[in-house]
Amino acid sequence: MRNMEIDLDPVFYPKSIAVIGASANPMKWGWIIPANIISGGYTGRLYLVNPKYDKITKLKCYPNVRSLPETVDLAVFTVPSRSVPELLEECGEVGVKAAIVIAGGFSEVGNEGKRLEQKVVNIARRYNITLIGPNTMGIYSAPVSLCALMPPVRPIKGEVSMISQSGNIGTNMLAFGRVNNVGFNLFACSGNEAMVRCEDYIEYFGQDPNTKVILAYIEGIRNGRKFMRVVDEVIEKKPIIVLKGGRTRSGAKAARSHTGVLAGEMKIYEAVFKQLGVVIARSTDEMLDLAKAFTRVPLPKGNKVGIITWGGGYGVLISDACEEAGLELAELSEETLEELNRLLPPYWSHGNPIDMVGDMNREAHFKCLEILVRDKNVDAVIALGLITGMDFFEAFRNFDFVPGEFIEVFSSMWKNYDRIALSKIKELIQKYGKPIIAVTLTAEASKVQSVMDEEKVLGYTSLERAATVLAKMYKYYEHLRRKKSVRGDRLGSP
Amino acid sequence: MRNMEIDLDPVFYPKSIAVIGASANPMKWGWIIPANIISGGYTGRLYLVNPKYDKITKLKCYPNVRSLPETVDLAVFTVPSRSVPELLEECGEVGVKAAIVIAGGFSEVGNEGKRLEQKVVNIARRYNITLIGPNTMGIYSAPVSLCALMPPVRPIKGEVSMISQSGNIGTNMLAFGRVNNVGFNLFACSGNEAMVRCEDYIEYFGQDPNTKVILAYIEGIRNGRKFMRVVDEVIEKKPIIVLKGGRTRSGAKAARSHTGVLAGEMKIYEAVFKQLGVVIARSTDEMLDLAKAFTRVPLPKGNKVGIITWGGGYGVLISDACEEAGLELAELSEETLEELNRLLPPYWSHGNPIDMVGDMNREAHFKCLEILVRDKNVDAVIALGLITGMDFFEAFRNFDFVPGEFIEVFSSMWKNYDRIALSKIKELIQKYGKPIIAVTLTAEASKVQSVMDEEKVLGYTSLERAATVLAKMYKYYEHLRRKKSVRGDRLGSP
Repeated sequence: MRNMEIDLDPVFYPKSIAVIGASANPMKWGWIIPANIISGGYTGRLYLVNPKYDKITKLKCYPNVRSLPETVDLAVFTVPSRSVPELLEECGEVGVKAAIVIAGGFSEVGNEGKRLEQKVVNIARRYNITLIGPNTMGIYSAPVSLCALMPPVRPIKGEVSMISQSGNIGTNMLAFGRVNNVGFNLFACSGNEAMVRCEDYIEYFGQDPNTKVILAYIEGIRNGRKFMRVVDEVIEKKPIIVLKGGRTRSGAKAARSHTGVLAGEMKIYEAVFKQLGVVIARSTDEMLDLAKAFTRVPLPKGNKVGIITWGGGYGVLISDACEEAGLELAELSEETLEELNRLLPPYWSHGNPIDMVGDMNREAHFKCLEILVRDKNVDAVIALGLITGMDFFEAFRNFDFVPGEFIEVFSSMWKNYDRIALSKIKELIQKYGKPIIAVTLTAEASKVQSVMDEEKVLGYTSLERAATVLAKMYKYYEHLRRKKSVRGDRLGSP
Repeated sequence: MRNMEIDLDPVFYPKSIAVIGASANPMKWGWIIPANIISGGYTGRLYLVNPKYDKITKLKCYPNVRSLPETVDLAVFTVPSRSVPELLEECGEVGVKAAIVIAGGFSEVGNEGKRLEQKVVNIARRYNITLIGPNTMGIYSAPVSLCALMPPVRPIKGEVSMISQSGNIGTNMLAFGRVNNVGFNLFACSGNEAMVRCEDYIEYFGQDPNTKVILAYIEGIRNGRKFMRVVDEVIEKKPIIVLKGGRTRSGAKAARSHTGVLAGEMKIYEAVFKQLGVVIARSTDEMLDLAKAFTRVPLPKGNKVGIITWGGGYGVLISDACEEAGLELAELSEETLEELNRLLPPYWSHGNPIDMVGDMNREAHFKCLEILVRDKNVDAVIALGLITGMDFFEAFRNFDFVPGEFIEVFSSMWKNYDRIALSKIKELIQKYGKPIIAVTLTAEASKVQSVMDEEKVLGYTSLERAATVLAKMYKYYEHLRRKKSVRGDRLGSP
């Protein structure tokens, strides 16, 4: 790609790969990583390298990188740290373009490790090799179906790209993505960042046309100046969601022994993130919540929320959650109030939140939802209880206090309404360009979550999470608006 | 029960019940509530009352409460609000002891409703009837298997009792309890609290020998003086976990149209709750998290946490979460450090959090856990990644880069370790009297959550939730300690 000091193309688009230190022992990363690459369906050519073997199962094994039938783009090192310099030198000599060094035992373990790491960096620079890691869990690239990862994760392909300074957190995000139907395009664990750093990946993801949302788990930033420049540029095109590890004294201490990074003063990070318009996630769960939000619904163009609820208590709690997150409850327009008066039973709440007070008439819910979404005073809608996942009369099956076939009929009708709700939500988002977030709080919530995710409807099983996500989307919108340089057509489109 | 101004025994231990306004239409609460009572397995005698029917399905229906073969302890009213006074009068005349009024349309809807409610209260007082509601979703009582509830919820029996000023939130907690293996003993939606109020239920639950933990969803407190006296007494015997609705201006406004209560100044509530040692929950999820914690593990006797993790990044995030929640990371004792040096590979983190750095030797995890729990500097343990729910080699099945039967053997060993971990945790809690919280963050977390709940092991799928719960348990412990009047044997037992 253009204007990059560091070339990440051979990392994310390699035509051929060598695993240096391939193993026949399935308890070794030298076995697991090529197994991941193969079973992940890598579209390029893979070579195994280890002088100890002629074959590993059915696959030919080469004694060294010189003996390969071609010059590979990428070498993945699964050898111990002390063997890396010599073998990397050999890669350099034959013209390998990039290397991923999995092993730990470098700068994160003290001075001797630091010297070893510097030696490796020097070799990489001398041969113009792009060096990922060391102390990394690897990378993922959807365009070439490459799972060069330690854990056996098979991400869904999609529009989120991620840089993680923790292998576990990063690869778990890929795995959570699979469960939550959040797809990834490019992914890297940056490890000790001896050469390629967090900010380099963000720059690369910023230029990647298939990346719409960027996630970053960051413990510390090594080149603050570049980070700020890159983020400031990229954030105009796509949201950057950051989870910062090492926010506290204890966390910072743990970070030092983890990747050897200085986590720094959280106050400074917070201030910089805020100034740059970074979307700050407070947990891995929230990071995923935000990734869903930014890929599934348009940005809210204001902070006035319309709420529809099926029970007064939840109306109270969602009002609290919205205000605590920095949102405001929309004042419903006269037209909306009149329409709702015609539609709802007389005891409805006559304001926002619209409380359906346990009304079983679900057709009315859908009408309510549309009236609310189109209200000019409403920027976004949180809809509670629209998708229930419940079989309301299930408890009464097989017991004789039941009139005829009523229950069967009612149950199938009830289930059908859930399906209608899902398509109604998608239709209204399309029609009015406003975000709608569904919240399901029944005991069947986790089942409903799966269905919503499958349909890519933005939904949560927690009021607080819905309100938090919406508030953070609005902040990002406000940042873009303030920056002005943003093109009008970008605002509000997902 | 003793010393109560209000007698709740006929509500929670009725020998016989009449449903006033029973219906043959399954869309009416007059059908659904008796259906719930019958299919819930109520141990007493149930009578249906409605002059419109001779029978509802196979059950006899009586024209009025006078015509019943006995004087019932409890009448459940499923008639519209305007019919309540006359029918309650009739109940009073025949000697019914308690009444639950389901219908809304009372003080929550304005002045006319207020007058109607006052009329109902006056009748109840005149006949010494304990009045629940109006505008309530009903009650649950495990001792007599009574589900006198609007939604078809079938709670698990257990040691948690709850008072809720919201029917939806309350009955959903029962439903969540079922999914999460949290059992309930007594439960009431207090509705408009025309007679029996939040503080009366707490007093009653305080005296109930089968209640170990009390939950309360509160929008507003009507008798602050009694609330403070009752909570101050009860909290010495059992924790009271409160979720306050109407914390913000918007929330308070929603509460007014919900149950007609004044939510009041949150600052005052916070101060009072803090002074009384109330455990404050911030969401329904957290309420459930806390109910699990207080019923499953002993109280921590200090705020020093020992952490075991399987990845450095999570070690950083859990350290942050602990410190942000007000906990401290324990300084490991010399003995512990020596033992761990002997046990772990040389690259372990040499401190707290104990980072296993992806070591696949799970026997070592269990040993680590015990060493950590018994350290005199450690008051509580958070164990990450001890139960993985993963089939690590699943991704490699049915593809030929696999040596022999290795994968089958490894997978079954791996699964077996999860089972060992569960019983090890329970064993160590028993042996050392300290709380252990398991945290699972793999993509299989929701499956693992079910297994942990089934085994009543305290576990979460979020670092932040684990840290929050532990911090709140410690605060409660500190409150008890400060109060001193507490007996030593109570401290530390679940």
